[in-house]
Amino acid sequence: MKTLKLLNYAADRWVGGDGSLADVHSAITGEVFAQTGSSGLDFKAMLDHARNVGGPALRRLTFHERAHMLKALANAIMARKEELYELNYATGATRADGWIDIEGGAGTLFSFSSKGRRELPNGKVLIDGAMEPLSKGGTFVGQHVFTPLQGVAVHINAFNFPVWGMLEKLGPTLLAGVPAIVKPASSTGYLTEAAFRIMIEADILPPGALQLVMGSTGDLMDHLTLQDVVSFTGSAQTAMKLQSHPVIARESVRFIAERDSLNASILGPDAAPGTPEFDLFVKEVAREMTVKAGQKCTAIRRAMAPAEHLDAVQDALAERLARVRIGDPREEGVQMGALASQAQLKDVRARVTELAKSARIVSGDPETPPVPGNGAFISPILLRSDDPWGADAVHDVEAFGPVSTIMPYRDLDDAIALANRGMGSLALSLFTYDTDTARDFVLGAGAYHGRMVILDRTSAKESTGHGSPLPVLVHGGPGRAGGGEEMGGVRGVAHYMQRTALQGSPEMLSKVIGQWLPGADTPEGDVHPFRKRIAELDIGYTLKTASRTVTLEDVEHFARFTGDTFYAHMDDEAAKASPIFEGRVAHGYLILSFAAGLFVEPAPGPVLANTGLENLRFQTPLYPGDAMRVELTVKSKSVRDEEKGEVRWAVRILNQNDEVVATYELLTMNRP
Amino acid sequence: MKTLKLLNYAADRWVGGDGSLADVHSAITGEVFAQTGSSGLDFKAMLDHARNVGGPALRRLTFHERAHMLKALANAIMARKEELYELNYATGATRADGWIDIEGGAGTLFSFSSKGRRELPNGKVLIDGAMEPLSKGGTFVGQHVFTPLQGVAVHINAFNFPVWGMLEKLGPTLLAGVPAIVKPASSTGYLTEAAFRIMIEADILPPGALQLVMGSTGDLMDHLTLQDVVSFTGSAQTAMKLQSHPVIARESVRFIAERDSLNASILGPDAAPGTPEFDLFVKEVAREMTVKAGQKCTAIRRAMAPAEHLDAVQDALAERLARVRIGDPREEGVQMGALASQAQLKDVRARVTELAKSARIVSGDPETPPVPGNGAFISPILLRSDDPWGADAVHDVEAFGPVSTIMPYRDLDDAIALANRGMGSLALSLFTYDTDTARDFVLGAGAYHGRMVILDRTSAKESTGHGSPLPVLVHGGPGRAGGGEEMGGVRGVAHYMQRTALQGSPEMLSKVIGQWLPGADTPEGDVHPFRKRIAELDIGYTLKTASRTVTLEDVEHFARFTGDTFYAHMDDEAAKASPIFEGRVAHGYLILSFAAGLFVEPAPGPVLANTGLENLRFQTPLYPGDAMRVELTVKSKSVRDEEKGEVRWAVRILNQNDEVVATYELLTMNRP
Repeated sequence: MKTLKLLNYAADRWVGGDGSLADVHSAITGEVFAQTGSSGLDFKAMLDHARNVGGPALRRLTFHERAHMLKALANAIMARKEELYELNYATGATRADGWIDIEGGAGTLFSFSSKGRRELPNGKVLIDGAMEPLSKGGTFVGQHVFTPLQGVAVHINAFNFPVWGMLEKLGPTLLAGVPAIVKPASSTGYLTEAAFRIMIEADILPPGALQLVMGSTGDLMDHLTLQDVVSFTGSAQTAMKLQSHPVIARESVRFIAERDSLNASILGPDAAPGTPEFDLFVKEVAREMTVKAGQKCTAIRRAMAPAEHLDAVQDALAERLARVRIGDPREEGVQMGALASQAQLKDVRARVTELAKSARIVSGDPETPPVPGNGAFISPILLRSDDPWGADAVHDVEAFGPVSTIMPYRDLDDAIALANRGMGSLALSLFTYDTDTARDFVLGAGAYHGRMVILDRTSAKESTGHGSPLPVLVHGGPGRAGGGEEMGGVRGVAHYMQRTALQGSPEMLSKVIGQWLPGADTPEGDVHPFRKRIAELDIGYTLKTASRTVTLEDVEHFARFTGDTFYAHMDDEAAKASPIFEGRVAHGYLILSFAAGLFVEPAPGPVLANTGLENLRFQTPLYPGDAMRVELTVKSKSVRDEEKGEVRWAVRILNQNDEVVATYELLTMNRP
Repeated sequence: MKTLKLLNYAADRWVGGDGSLADVHSAITGEVFAQTGSSGLDFKAMLDHARNVGGPALRRLTFHERAHMLKALANAIMARKEELYELNYATGATRADGWIDIEGGAGTLFSFSSKGRRELPNGKVLIDGAMEPLSKGGTFVGQHVFTPLQGVAVHINAFNFPVWGMLEKLGPTLLAGVPAIVKPASSTGYLTEAAFRIMIEADILPPGALQLVMGSTGDLMDHLTLQDVVSFTGSAQTAMKLQSHPVIARESVRFIAERDSLNASILGPDAAPGTPEFDLFVKEVAREMTVKAGQKCTAIRRAMAPAEHLDAVQDALAERLARVRIGDPREEGVQMGALASQAQLKDVRARVTELAKSARIVSGDPETPPVPGNGAFISPILLRSDDPWGADAVHDVEAFGPVSTIMPYRDLDDAIALANRGMGSLALSLFTYDTDTARDFVLGAGAYHGRMVILDRTSAKESTGHGSPLPVLVHGGPGRAGGGEEMGGVRGVAHYMQRTALQGSPEMLSKVIGQWLPGADTPEGDVHPFRKRIAELDIGYTLKTASRTVTLEDVEHFARFTGDTFYAHMDDEAAKASPIFEGRVAHGYLILSFAAGLFVEPAPGPVLANTGLENLRFQTPLYPGDAMRVELTVKSKSVRDEEKGEVRWAVRILNQNDEVVATYELLTMNRP
């Protein structure tokens, strides 16, 4: 087999490393598979290229335009996924493992693309939270916004998911409008390089948006500024070294870390042998040990069971693990492949030795290779600690392979304390059908874990399991896990943006954020707003309707017609006795219906349908004899495609004294 | 005057420092005013006391209970504010300065109390964002929540706002349910100690909730864990030292820093002399220089104007500054007092010397004391740099006193670049009446500034100005400013909580978070839910109504009655031509009104009024001849006081094929 020469991608050019390159070995055969290196790269120039070329180009696009690019990138990966599956075997991974990495990676981009189009505006500024009134007269208000950082995202990735690990970070980064420099781990970087190459060859992104470093990052850290983000996945040791680089504190560089994690899985006190939850627990612990040969930052390292059920757990697990077929992942029927490298194998063995000082191996043998040859194979190793409070190593030492320790707990408080003894984790799972147990566990352990999965018979079939980070949920955890957060839908996009509190007049802030705010100008015109296409509708454009008196007959008629004979509308005495009303009041829905009658323009036009309504608040009761009128203002608008768009209207219903009866936001689907 | 002996408050007892105490001098007379020290304190024991006593006690309370405590604390401060004003003079501050510190501090607690009751649930878990569907069948879903950190908030505060600086951090911390250890700066700590003492004597908080360190924090940092937060306000130098403590990276201790900031204020290109914005700019720069003698982390250090207007700015500012009356802040008519200490005076003079190397002093004299005696008085110093790109010091050196530098810019891009040259600030102000200028500035500079105030003639009267952090807005900034965020309403509460992604069945997660989720159980009962008081309403309790057919007559009648004759309801041919409908459809408001008719229980009872409606989405058109029925489910509930509470109902409207016609959430005001 020809040795691959891996290239860096710097300033929109593929370049090899200078001087001697490092050998990368196949996990399966031990042969040299690729050569890699980054010496000779000008890291300062790469950062400047991203800042001066990639960033401005990305920031010129809207969130929706960037979301469309993510979808195109994902499609490009999917179209050439077989090339990636082919390389995937060399990492020791099975096709099923590769599916998580490759299609899971593309799926993450699809998810961010979809979230971006559904939850972000088709603009450049992300509005955060509601307008904050800051003055009595309403001429001075506040509004938080996010704008893209003007620097570079430096992604330093782990070896275990060479494709997903890159894409889960690129999704939110590119969506935010920030260019990235990707640095994969050397042992499996060839797979990252191939996926990266597919994206570049698809020619979707503007120049400068992506760069790739296939080796050391040299002096790159020295040149970071406040506008840059370092997002690191890997060992706690390396994370601490990076985080302690003086530039981090000096320039307040954002540092996101996802590092070690002694993830726990707990068999609930109710989940005795024979319950569905017991079987689910055994299956999940075994699965987490063997998927990707246990090289998952979310894999279960500590499995806890009620003391009286620990033997049953051990037996069931040992039986299951003994059946796992280990071998060359290309072979039909192989369930677990190799570790990613000989170095990894050595490391896992050393850590098992450490663990075995205070726990005993009850299944598997770390020293006897389950497959002959030079591959990095190891059998699943199950340890047991009967005194988990006397065995620090099982809570502190992460063997990054198919290795878990089972341990007993006394009661739920003990289980919570043991789970938290890991000092911060990415993922915890609890197998229980008892909702009180689950609630107590979340209250007692929530602060120590980034994700908690509660699994039972109801969700078993559809569950994604203990170990799967999902793009719509945050991935990260406190303490040992690094204290960082990634993904989480739009939350992940904000990691690459700066939140700024804006203050000013409503009119000024409306113009800045491209959205009408209460108190801003409400210009009227000759044309009914329903007759204007989205492109012609100015933010703030307002229709002020005629007034209509609501009579007692209207209220009675409405009650008979709809069946809503609530006493506050029908019985003057009872209504007066309420702490809110001075007598019979008009129905809220009558007011809404009359409001529509006042503002609707009936003929066919750009408005296709009323699709929804939000934030309705009734503020002043409307009594029979009162009049009502409506002010309808274009609050925001968004074009989805050539066929459709959405307009959000701010609606205010006022009585004859100009008191606010109700406010709400109306959503319509419009022609662009 | 008797020298005050300041005490620490450790494990709910007042204790003095061992050994020799440090002298604290009056800023006005230079005399020894107080003595302070913390040697002999057992910091590990203090942390443990907070963790084992204060934290559990606070976490047993709900957000609303904690919000009520904040209000009581603020009332206690206000009731004894004159004691604090008396001490305030010794810091060199005027009564007006003290108002910001003392009443501004209490106001911050009031604001957090109010936000806590209005925006947080009356429970222990804070729900973050919407439920995330994770499976097709809906049996496996995700929901983010925040739970309180189980450690200690260590607040290391600056000298300039001894009361506000403490309270702006305690508000969100206590609201989150986290105990705190407060460490004020030594030079003005006597004022913090007095305010702290008022809160302790008011006996509002549970034991262990608050502790006070009146000196060095000794080995405290060594004992921090992943559950603790360090929130620091002060110099970049000290911040970097703290942030580099190995425990921070090792345990991923949250570190919030608010440090140096070369805040900029920009006179817009449109704001020529003679415009209201020009006058506002001059007034604000002068005010920011002199309030608190310029010892504000948000004060304007760099004032930028179009080159052609710089002379006019200089003249107007110099004229205004010359009029400022400096002296003993107790004296009638004094507008600016002293710096907080002789050390501060020395420091400010040294930094002015540095600045004066590349800018020239155009008003004021740093070396001539404006007031005789040993007070730390200095006159306002205005510098001018005509080559701001050649003068690094004006963008890098913060003289923490009444010191600002004016400088010219060429055009808006130059102004943006100069503003960003500060490498991260807390607050920026822009004086313009031109909305395009404002929008370009926010897009160009947002990523570099934590707060941006756009001031003009419209908001001038009600504006809180350039330098006022507000509890409802985030306070903090990127880069030089420390990269931290404080306050920002509920955002600030989340700084002391851990976000966890929960996964499980809707029923399981509903029970964990105390809120019904779509897909969770919907038990029915014999009693109409409107007949139950809040306490009797179980989350998930559901009413399933009878069905009602909607006829063409209903639609025509509704159209005539309300005036809503939109073509989609009235004209079959036009409706069919729309891309959405297959023919005439029922009005959305008709559907809502009929729904109410189906679910309302008319007789007087616990439900007082329909107060609002949220998240309405019409999903399937309802055609004449279709039937509709309603499922009304208790989603969440909250008791406000003895009179009132709120129930949020999840409403689903279904057609005869059980397709979802519409979903929304209904809000009612109920008796508890």
